Parts: sequence; structure tokens; C-alpha cells
Amino acid sequence: MNITEQKISIEKVKQSKINQVDFDNLSFGSVFADHMLVCDYKDGKWEAPKVVPYQPIVLDPSSKIFHYGQSIFEGMKAYKDVNNDTWLFRPLENQKRLNVSAKRMAIPEIPEDYFMEGLKTLLKVDEQWIPKNEGSSLYIRPFIFATGQGFHASPADEYKFIISCAPSGAYFSGKVKVLIEEKYSRSANGGVGYAKAGGNYAGQFYPTQLAVAKGYNQVIWTDDNTHEYIEEAGAMNIFVRINDTLITGPTSDRILDGITRKSILEIAKDEGITTEVRKITVAEVIAAAKDGSLKEMFGAGTAAVISPIATFGYRDVDYDLPENEDSMATKLKKRITDIQYNKTEDTFGWRYKV
Amino acid sequence: MNITEQKISIEKVKQSKINQVDFDNLSFGSVFADHMLVCDYKDGKWEAPKVVPYQPIVLDPSSKIFHYGQSIFEGMKAYKDVNNDTWLFRPLENQKRLNVSAKRMAIPEIPEDYFMEGLKTLLKVDEQWIPKNEGSSLYIRPFIFATGQGFHASPADEYKFIISCAPSGAYFSGKVKVLIEEKYSRSANGGVGYAKAGGNYAGQFYPTQLAVAKGYNQVIWTDDNTHEYIEEAGAMNIFVRINDTLITGPTSDRILDGITRKSILEIAKDEGITTEVRKITVAEVIAAAKDGSLKEMFGAGTAAVISPIATFGYRDVDYDLPENEDSMATKLKKRITDIQYNKTEDTFGWRYKV
Repeated sequence: MNITEQKISIEKVKQSKINQVDFDNLSFGSVFADHMLVCDYKDGKWEAPKVVPYQPIVLDPSSKIFHYGQSIFEGMKAYKDVNNDTWLFRPLENQKRLNVSAKRMAIPEIPEDYFMEGLKTLLKVDEQWIPKNEGSSLYIRPFIFATGQGFHASPADEYKFIISCAPSGAYFSGKVKVLIEEKYSRSANGGVGYAKAGGNYAGQFYPTQLAVAKGYNQVIWTDDNTHEYIEEAGAMNIFVRINDTLITGPTSDRILDGITRKSILEIAKDEGITTEVRKITVAEVIAAAKDGSLKEMFGAGTAAVISPIATFGYRDVDYDLPENEDSMATKLKKRITDIQYNKTEDTFGWRYKV
Repeated sequence: MNITEQKISIEKVKQSKINQVDFDNLSFGSVFADHMLVCDYKDGKWEAPKVVPYQPIVLDPSSKIFHYGQSIFEGMKAYKDVNNDTWLFRPLENQKRLNVSAKRMAIPEIPEDYFMEGLKTLLKVDEQWIPKNEGSSLYIRPFIFATGQGFHASPADEYKFIISCAPSGAYFSGKVKVLIEEKYSRSANGGVGYAKAGGNYAGQFYPTQLAVAKGYNQVIWTDDNTHEYIEEAGAMNIFVRINDTLITGPTSDRILDGITRKSILEIAKDEGITTEVRKITVAEVIAAAKDGSLKEMFGAGTAAVISPIATFGYRDVDYDLPENEDSMATKLKKRITDIQYNKTEDTFGWRYKV
């Protein structure tokens, strides 16, 4: 079945709760818009998506989401410009990556029209929930999980695809201090690290708690075999600036193919910044910090966009990064968010009008 | 608070559904007993467990179980002997391991008395659900998952601990054919492979589907770095018999510390079988298969107890294992199940009367 907006049923809330929301003081992902998109997978196919009031999900205790971790998600944002038009940023990249994750986690893939028409319909219904304040946006969370039942360790036969939205402010605030981790790891060669699978995040919480107890905000993950290579920063990709070269690691089956990451690489090239996509050793970062050639480190991801690192710790030594007047992080963040909020020309064709 | 059986409230079903169950034709984990134990974690503590009718779970769409994979579980069984007494097998080992998993997944640990008194109370209420047929048992599934809400990637503040039971027959039937996997991996050094975390199972489904498409039942996992070492068999530990020596790999942060595994090691020693706990290379297994010294391979776990492997595949070659009149798998399975069903003396002190 082809899905068009006309085929998506809409059940509206009787009473909106938008007046209870303080749009001037939004945290991240803790207040939810009036409606959600729901689409069920049964009898070997996805049923028609529908927009319904945001409401509890009812599941059998033997549903496989509780036992075997079949869950994947995406993170996106909707932006309002000064003309009150609504924009998305490279939404088809999210749709494609959701299906890359789905395949690895033995979850049925969601067709492009179900995702895109469903999302657009939902955003039109909940348009008032898209914040207009500077720096705020509507965080969009598409996710799929196993509802099928039974204690047998095998893929479920039923799934639920949901898109839920949360008007949100900044993900991080203040200076970020990170710890280069050498004991715990995020992902295996041949594992699921490249998928946005729920379990990849739960596995990071305990090592992150240990880092937080030492005064850090996040962990920088290294490869699980040698711990010699820098791979990801918490739930973000990582960039390192040595002198005037901007470096990020190559994607692999251990590393998420971040949409912000690849957008930054393209913008940097467009800005005339020399970029390198190659493995980054911990040793070279330490050496560069010591000789002063390490100018910047930052995380990149949808939620935080670009999150500059002020300090990193390694083997009980903290290394402070310099304050730069010509910060690449600042320049790149402004360029990407100006495209997202339709404040500048989009020569890349990334902006998508709803 | 200390939990005693007196403190556990019991709400019974109005009408049991036990008469709808065909106890002579039980599959694995697909029919659920009338009641379940539920215990909620809120405001920094576990509330008193309660026995309630088996019923749907109602969750907010932003509950972290759907997004960040915070879920762990255990597998246990209850057995009936000829006197109609009910037995468990090393239940405190499950309780301890659940907390090992909890710690790694940043989930609050469950106190021993909550687990044990809750479990015993539930088994008394649902005693009629414990099968009396040879080879059947009541499969017990304790599990904990994150109910706390929000899209921020951080541990939840609320959790649900549930024990649900399913009268079950054999997990596997027929000859098991396994494939030694060299591309995909189950776990990372410093990862969560030793935890019974939901995501560890979802990550195995796709590679297992690929193996099934080639005619195998399960995957034998190798280490993610070199793929030279045999680590686990599907969701079980693996044993290899070369001549008259029984070998299994050492536990590590990549490998589950199986209760059946360690019980088999002790029984084997008691039977005078030479055992070795050491790394097993794929190369030595292939060499032993070729020169005839490879006598047996089997998986070991709670669900299947001991699951003999008839054939294994490696790099497009299948190796058949011989039929043994003096099969260690058969002898060890009989010894362990005789202890579990109270058919023989338990010199190890493993049996636990409910």
C-alpha cells in the first residue's frame, strides 16, 4: 500500500495541553506534544499510520521489547523560521538510517512514504508545538520496538513504529568535560555499534556514571581491542582540530554514521577548512595537547548539534583546551543552525519544507 | 524494609485459565501462568512486591525501555518431583547474577529477600501451573526494565521488576546444526556481554537469521577481535570434548557466567571427567574434527539444559560429530536433571525446596 497524507487518519485531543508549557524554559525531551504517530506491524506488514492523542502504550508482559531489546530510534528536529514556516533537516537521511538499524536488529524496515507522510501529517497537527524561541526546536523521536510475545529468544512477529515530539531547549549547557575511557567499551567489531539500537545507550550509562563521579560529563569511547583509537563522544561523533586541520574518525560497524557529522564535514570543506577522515589515536591527541597544536575538540549530533569540549581527562591527567577566537566549532555550529532555521541560503539542498 | 511472605499482597484471578492449557503439548515460553509478581522502583527505592493477575503493562511512550534499552532478565525453572514437591535449582545464583547485570546496565539492584520471597510466594499461588510431565517444567522469567520517562539519554528514575512464569516443554528438539561465525560478533571487550541484557539478544537475531537461511539452527560466536576463539553458542555456553577431556572457555566480560555451565563443570569433576577451562581456538576444533579426536560439542543453558551439536559449519565446510555410546552430554544432562527433579541425591546442595 502506498501511503499518502489522505490515508492517514487523525484523531485529535479533546483539550490541548500546550497552555501548560513554558516555552521560554524548555529542557530537553521532557514535555511531549499533544499527538503521536502510531503504525503497527502485524501479519507480515505495516498497517496504515495514524495520528492519535499522545497516550500510554499497553503491552503484554511477554512482549519481546522487555526481554530481548529489539528497539531502534532516530533523533530529528523541526525548526520554525521568521515567516512561521516549518523546516526539517535532511529527514530522508534519518529514514534511511532507521532502516539500516532495523535490518541489523532484525526489525522490519519502514517504507519511506509511511515515515515521511506520517511525519509531515503529525507536524501539521502539532504545528503549534514547534518552538519559535532562538535555540529551541521541536525534537522528533521516531522509534520502533518489538511488541510480539513469547519468551523464546527470537525476533518478534509484531512491532510498533511511533513518532513522538518534544519541544526542547539545549541538550548540554555549560562547559563539557570528558574522560577518555580505557576499560569499558561501547561496541564490538561485527556488533551493533553503527545502529541506533536501544541497548547501545544502556550499555554506556554505567561507565558514564563512573566518569560523572570523577567530575566529568561524558565519556570518550575508544576501540574495544587496543583502546588506542578515539571513536565516539558519549552519544555523539567526535571531531578534533589539530592546528588548522579538522579530523574525525571514519565510520565503521562500531561507529554511528552521524548526519550532523557528515554535514559538518561538507560545511567545513565549503568553508575552506582542511578536513581529514581517518583514525585518531589517543597518543596524537595527548601529544597535540602538550605541544599546543590541539586547538579544539567537539562532539556532533542532532540533540546537541555541536558540543565544544573544554577539558578532557586521560589516565588521571586533565588537559584543558584553549579558548579560540576563531573557533571552528562556533563557526560550523552557526552555519549549520542558520541552514536549519532558514536564516541563510542552503547550497547543499538539506533543508526540507513541511 | 525487609520483605517476608506476609508482606507480599496477593490479588488472585477471578477465573483461572489453566484448563485451557494442554500440558501434554507444551512449547517453550508461549503460555503464561495466571499470576505475576510486580515490584516498582520509585523515589529511590523498591516498593513492596505484590502478586497480581497476569495483565498488560501500561507505559508512557517516553519510557526509557523503548529508547535506551535498559532491560535485564534471568531464566530459571521450577520442577515437580513424584511427591508433588516443588524445587528450584540454585536460585540464589540467578538472584546474584540479576544484580551483576543490573549494575552494568545502571539499573538499581533488587534485594535478595524481595527476589526470593516474591518468587516463592508467586510459585505457591501458581503451584498448579508447574508441569508434572517428564521433561517439562515451569520456566520462570524474572526481568527488570526502565519505566522512567524522557528522551534524555541517561538512566531512568523508575523501574519495574516482574516475575512471570510459563509452563514449558523442550527448548530445542532434533539435531542442532551450528555455524561458526566470523563476521558478526556478540560482545566487546569492556562491553555488556557478561550481563543478561536485552540488547545482547536482539544483536544476535540478524546474524542468526543469516545462518538459518544457510540451513543452520544457531551461531557459534567467536571473539570480536581475531575470530580465532570460540566463545558462546547462541544464547548458551559451549563445551567441546576432545578425546576424553571436556573443555569450556573461561568466563570474561564478553561471556555469560552460566549457572548450567558451572554446574556441569562440577558434575563432570565429580564423575571423574577431566575438565579444562581455557580458551578454545577454532583451529584446534577443526583439527580435532579432522583427526577424529573431536567427540562431542554441546551448548549449556537453563532453557535447553544441554543441547548436543550434531554438525558445525566453518568456512563453507560442514563437520559432522560422531554418535557416541558413552556420550558425556547424555550422562551430564541426566545427572543434572535428576538433581533438578529430585530423582537423585544432591551432594552439591543445589536443590532448593519451595
